[in-house]
Amino acid sequence: MKESNPDNGGNNTKKAVILVSGGLDSATCLAIARAEGYDCYALSFNYGQRASSELDAAMRLASAFSVRQHQVIPLGIGQLGGSALTDASVAMPESGVVPDQIPVTYVPARNTVFLSYALAWAEVLEADSIFIGVNALDYSGYPDCRPEFILAFEQMANLATRIGVEGRPIRIKTPLIDLGKAQIIAMGHELGVNYGLTVSCYQADSKGRACGRCDSCRLRRKGFDDAGIADPTSYVSR
Amino acid sequence: MKESNPDNGGNNTKKAVILVSGGLDSATCLAIARAEGYDCYALSFNYGQRASSELDAAMRLASAFSVRQHQVIPLGIGQLGGSALTDASVAMPESGVVPDQIPVTYVPARNTVFLSYALAWAEVLEADSIFIGVNALDYSGYPDCRPEFILAFEQMANLATRIGVEGRPIRIKTPLIDLGKAQIIAMGHELGVNYGLTVSCYQADSKGRACGRCDSCRLRRKGFDDAGIADPTSYVSR
Repeated sequence: MKESNPDNGGNNTKKAVILVSGGLDSATCLAIARAEGYDCYALSFNYGQRASSELDAAMRLASAFSVRQHQVIPLGIGQLGGSALTDASVAMPESGVVPDQIPVTYVPARNTVFLSYALAWAEVLEADSIFIGVNALDYSGYPDCRPEFILAFEQMANLATRIGVEGRPIRIKTPLIDLGKAQIIAMGHELGVNYGLTVSCYQADSKGRACGRCDSCRLRRKGFDDAGIADPTSYVSR
Repeated sequence: MKESNPDNGGNNTKKAVILVSGGLDSATCLAIARAEGYDCYALSFNYGQRASSELDAAMRLASAFSVRQHQVIPLGIGQLGGSALTDASVAMPESGVVPDQIPVTYVPARNTVFLSYALAWAEVLEADSIFIGVNALDYSGYPDCRPEFILAFEQMANLATRIGVEGRPIRIKTPLIDLGKAQIIAMGHELGVNYGLTVSCYQADSKGRACGRCDSCRLRRKGFDDAGIADPTSYVSR
């Protein structure tokens, strides 16, 4: 069997795997996990998302927060098709209107896949928590951001794994789940997050500059406005 | 939104995603799905498993069963460590004794990750079922092969996805879950599976020849013996 990890024995070190996309939600999540005293293990994915500058941002954040380890997992999810985020043939929405329906930027089963990898790593690390930055805005549109999904994933996770079966349950933590963008920004600001390191834009350029037009840019800008905090984002256009 | 698939409209075509490892369980599963009238979409993974000949077998099976499509997804699960199947520093068991504990060949959260990709593809295809060849032998040792895990995954899946939310639930089908190796072989034999195409060995050589010594080889050989069916496997030693 795998040797038990010495960090997880007699002392109080808690470990958490944090899903870090490079956006402002996951940056805030990382800050919260650190503030709660966790040893942080950052997990990012390269899944053919259009904005590779997101990944650069994830690396800057992992470094800024001095995480114990940062893994970037290549995913084949893009080859399955079906989303504007990975499929260049689907138009990117710029209307500024949050749709009633599930948006085209939805990647099929994305959070299920992301959390599954986080679970695999959490099991190897004997971590007790996984942090994911889903929030109130997300779950209006994406089924895999709703609280009932998160709870069902947690229940499944504790049946799926050695550590779950051995009675040390893994928790899926969603500290942002009831918060809007302005509240998230205010909380992160309080915790010292440098949002200049983050990228939200679906189509940022190679220098990491945001387009200023896509729905993600609009939501981000409005969040800073509503929070009354200066937006450090570099926009191509305003 | 994604265009609905014409195959899934007025006619009776049912689609299934079948997890195909190249072993005899998944080959039998594929035969069952086909016998049940599904359009079959085979899904395999390249996750740094020692036996790459498994993948060759998966491709032979996909071709023999004339599946609609076969996707091989590269997985970064090996980089997370923790298993004899992906980590060369962990010794491969050859005792022939099925352990009471979770075996070292367990890959953390493997079936969770596999099923998550299958779910993503099922959503894109608007498939109604996912087949996975977990069986009675597996679930003595692997937590993510037990019926309660499968049920929890299915519940989570239907909260995670657009098709689940829209009231067309996805079923995770495990036709082998109560069967032992001999029963599986007898069933597949009945359905015309050519087990000579399959590879079970954890350390098959580059020609696909099985070692004849590892636990997987022993179980396979015993399965054919117990079923009274000639074993078409090519072994390096017996």
